[in-house]
Amino acid sequence: MARATVLVTGMSGLIGGAVRKRLAGKYELRALNRRPVDGVASWRADIADLDAIQPAFAGVDVVVHLAAIAQGGAGWDDVLRHNVIGTYNVFEASRRAGVRRIVYASSGATVSGWEREAPYAALVAGRYDEAGAWVRLTHESPTRPSALYGCSKVWGEALARHYADAHGLSAICLRIGAVNAEDRPTTPRHFSVWCSQRDVAHLVERCVAAPERVRFDIFYAVSDNRWSYRDLEHARAVVGFEPEDRAEDYRGGSGRGPKATGAR
Amino acid sequence: MARATVLVTGMSGLIGGAVRKRLAGKYELRALNRRPVDGVASWRADIADLDAIQPAFAGVDVVVHLAAIAQGGAGWDDVLRHNVIGTYNVFEASRRAGVRRIVYASSGATVSGWEREAPYAALVAGRYDEAGAWVRLTHESPTRPSALYGCSKVWGEALARHYADAHGLSAICLRIGAVNAEDRPTTPRHFSVWCSQRDVAHLVERCVAAPERVRFDIFYAVSDNRWSYRDLEHARAVVGFEPEDRAEDYRGGSGRGPKATGAR
Repeated sequence: MARATVLVTGMSGLIGGAVRKRLAGKYELRALNRRPVDGVASWRADIADLDAIQPAFAGVDVVVHLAAIAQGGAGWDDVLRHNVIGTYNVFEASRRAGVRRIVYASSGATVSGWEREAPYAALVAGRYDEAGAWVRLTHESPTRPSALYGCSKVWGEALARHYADAHGLSAICLRIGAVNAEDRPTTPRHFSVWCSQRDVAHLVERCVAAPERVRFDIFYAVSDNRWSYRDLEHARAVVGFEPEDRAEDYRGGSGRGPKATGAR
Repeated sequence: MARATVLVTGMSGLIGGAVRKRLAGKYELRALNRRPVDGVASWRADIADLDAIQPAFAGVDVVVHLAAIAQGGAGWDDVLRHNVIGTYNVFEASRRAGVRRIVYASSGATVSGWEREAPYAALVAGRYDEAGAWVRLTHESPTRPSALYGCSKVWGEALARHYADAHGLSAICLRIGAVNAEDRPTTPRHFSVWCSQRDVAHLVERCVAAPERVRFDIFYAVSDNRWSYRDLEHARAVVGFEPEDRAEDYRGGSGRGPKATGAR
């Protein structure tokens, strides 16, 4: 049987690179990117131009849509062009081409506005004793976006829901936490919301491979962090997400780094 | 004490007219509109042009933002221009002008995607026996937008939340049901989601006048319909919404029309 074709937007980014590495050899990979991507079938086009990106979607089974302005402080013009219009264009081009599924890189910024309030405020500041007990937010909790960036990701999730309902596409939204180049927590907040590169790539892979019956869903992409406020059980139950990393393994001078103890 | 100034966008529309009638004499009313509005201080400008609309916001206390493409089947260009960009412009112009509160006309279309599933599907088709018992959706239920129009209203609610959090504006979102020119239910679905003109105008008034402590909220604007699936208790508790009408009073040949029995 021919391998399925997966189109990745934003493959030249940090998460895009991790996803590429994870999916290579298992799928026919394609890139749709602003910058050139070597070693893979690659389309260069501006995601804000629907006609320009359409050819990249021909014959594609699954789209992994990562391309976006990812800075929380991004201004309106960038957010509008790349995230609001760009994401509409990716859903619409997918529909026109008969794509089966979109794995959409949403963001923890759809809910991180809750960090303004107790107990989450204490948690992300590293004041764990003060946080006390807390209830993790689930995929059904009300959104509370941070910045225009977070609003644009709520918009993308709305499109995902609509396209799944109205056009029969499967759409899976990943509320991705803090993925960084150091690939380890570097701020107090990261002990709550960090996601390792391999954990996000693993979740993307699970979603690409998920059975047809998964029509629409929302999962948090964070590592298995002790101080997380984002639920992992739903992703575990539906697509078998099993994160290998935990932010607290990198904490302080305890020597409990993953290289010393074996990460899980 | 000087009366507060209320700017209404889309005053020439059906809901705009009802709101105008309700607020007249209680507030200094202004209109921001594409079409001319007689008898009130009026600005004509395209809501998609932030610079053009900005002057209308000077000295305004509360904005009632009704202007939008309201057709569920509206195409992308219209939704993008009027609802996505237009609503951003209204929030941003309000922030720049120091507006105290925005009452934002969201829509039941943010959740009407749930009508695809039992028991809501039976309910809106008028198959009440088949629907059995049902749980009403609340302001905390997951959204499920219908059409690009519904997605654009989810976007507007995200902006409302963000502007309330980040910029200290009070923002109240009204998920308005089916308001029509006949001002009575005209389809089976209306027996669930209809909202009379006076009920929506009453809720807008309650929100304009709500105390400062109401920083962000979401209320359903529907009449007190027996077969509604949208919660009214939250609006009742927070702003004292007391709808006067009920869709079922207009049902069939029973003569139980509101003129015969006195509407509540």
